[in-house]
Amino acid sequence: MPIVDMKMLEGFSQDQKEAMYAEVTDALCRTLGCRPDQVRIMVSDLATGDFAIAGKSVAAMRKASPSS
Amino acid sequence: MPIVDMKMLEGFSQDQKEAMYAEVTDALCRTLGCRPDQVRIMVSDLATGDFAIAGKSVAAMRKASPSS
Amino acid sequence: MPIVDMKMLEGFSQDQKEAMYAEVTDALCRTLGCRPDQVRIMVSDLATGDFAIAGKSVAAMRKASPSS
Amino acid sequence: MPIVDMKMLEGFSQDQKEAMYAEVTDALCRTLGCRPDQVRIMVSDLATGDFAIAGKSVAAMRKASPSS
Amino acid sequence: MPIVDMKMLEGFSQDQKEAMYAEVTDALCRTLGCRPDQVRIMVSDLATGDFAIAGKSVAAMRKASPSS
Amino acid sequence: MPIVDMKMLEGFSQDQKEAMYAEVTDALCRTLGCRPDQVRIMVSDLATGDFAIAGKSVAAMRKASPSS
Repeated sequence: MPIVDMKMLEGFSQDQKEAMYAEVTDALCRTLGCRPDQVRIMVSDLATGDFAIAGKSVAAMRKASPSS
Repeated sequence: MPIVDMKMLEGFSQDQKEAMYAEVTDALCRTLGCRPDQVRIMVSDLATGDFAIAGKSVAAMRKASPSS
Repeated sequence: MPIVDMKMLEGFSQDQKEAMYAEVTDALCRTLGCRPDQVRIMVSDLATGDFAIAGKSVAAMRKASPSS
Repeated sequence: MPIVDMKMLEGFSQDQKEAMYAEVTDALCRTLGCRPDQVRIMVSDLATGDFAIAGKSVAAMRKASPSS
Repeated sequence: MPIVDMKMLEGFSQDQKEAMYAEVTDALCRTLGCRPDQVRIMVSDLATGDFAIAGKSVAAMRKASPSS
Repeated sequence: MPIVDMKMLEGFSQDQKEAMYAEVTDALCRTLGCRPDQVRIMVSDLATGDFAIAGKSVAAMRKASPSS
C-alpha cells in the first residue's frame, strides 16, 4: 500500500505516464514513509465522452466551444 | 462531490450517455443539494465477457441462450 | 448493470440517501433503458480530511476559511 | 453483494476469465455464505503501460529486462 | 496483479474474511496462473443504508419486510 | 481530471495526508500538465484486517510475526 486507482482523460503519452508514476511514487514515499515497492498505481484512460462535469461530457463541452 | 464511478455494459450510444449525465446530475442535486459543477461522473464500458453474475459472464450466458 | 460506486462527503441523512437512490435509479432506467432491479448503487462516505481538491483537503480548506 | 471490481493485466483468455468467475464465485459463497446470484465480478484489463509498481510501469520494466 | 477491490455488506467476521482471502487467492492463482504474492484483495464493508438495489437501500428493504 | 482513488492502511496522521495531497497534486501537475484545481484525491483508510496480500490479511500477518 498505498494502491492508487487513477482516472485520466485519454491522450497522455507513455513518457508522461512514466514520469507521473515515478514522481507520484516519490511523493507518496516522502509523505507517507512507505517503500516504493509497496506503491501500485493503476491508470484508466477515459474517453472525453465518458467523463462528465455538471451533467455534460467533456466531449460535448468541447464540441459546444471548440476554442476553450 | 459527489464523484460517481459507473460501470455499464458497452453498447450505449453517446446520446444515451449524455442524457444520463444530465438526468443523474439533476437527481443528485435535487436530493443531495449539491451544485451541478460539484458532480463528476465517470463511465467505464464493460465488454460482456468482463462482467459476470453468479459465476458466469454475460457473454457466456448470452451464448448459452441467445433469445434471452 | 449499471453498477454505481458513489463517493460523497459524509453528513447526508439516510432520508437524503434514500431519495437519491430512488431518483438516480429512475434517471438511469429512463435514459439507459435498464430495469430498476439491474441497478446497484454503493455509497462511500468520505470524511472531509479524506477528500482533497487542488492539493488541499476540504477539512483544511474549511479550517482556513470557516465562513465559506 | 459481494461486488468485485478486479483489475488485471491484459492478456488472459476468455476461457481463463470464465474459469476465474466460476471459481471465485464458489470461493465467495463457500466462505461468506452468499448465493451465487448475489455475486457480481467486473474485470478491467490494464495495458502493461497502465500499471506501475515502485514508480515504473510493467511495460517499462519488461522493456528494461525482457527475459524476466 | 490481480488487484481485487471487494465491496460487501458489513457483518462478516474476521475469520470469514481470512477464509475468503485464502480461497479467492487460490482460485485466482489456479485459473489465471498468477503467484499468491501478486494478489491483493481490499475489502470495503458497506452499511446496509449505503447499498441500494432497484432504488432502495438494503436497510430500507429490511425495515419494510423484517422477516425476509 | 485526474481523479485519484487511493486506498491506504489506516494510521496515517492528517498532517501526513495533507502533505501527501500537496505533493501528489504537484507531481501530477508537473508531469501531466494539468491545473491543481483539476486534481481530486480521495482516500479510503483500510483496516489491517481488510487488506490481504498472498491470501492473508495484514492483521493476520502481523499477529503471526509481531516483530516484522
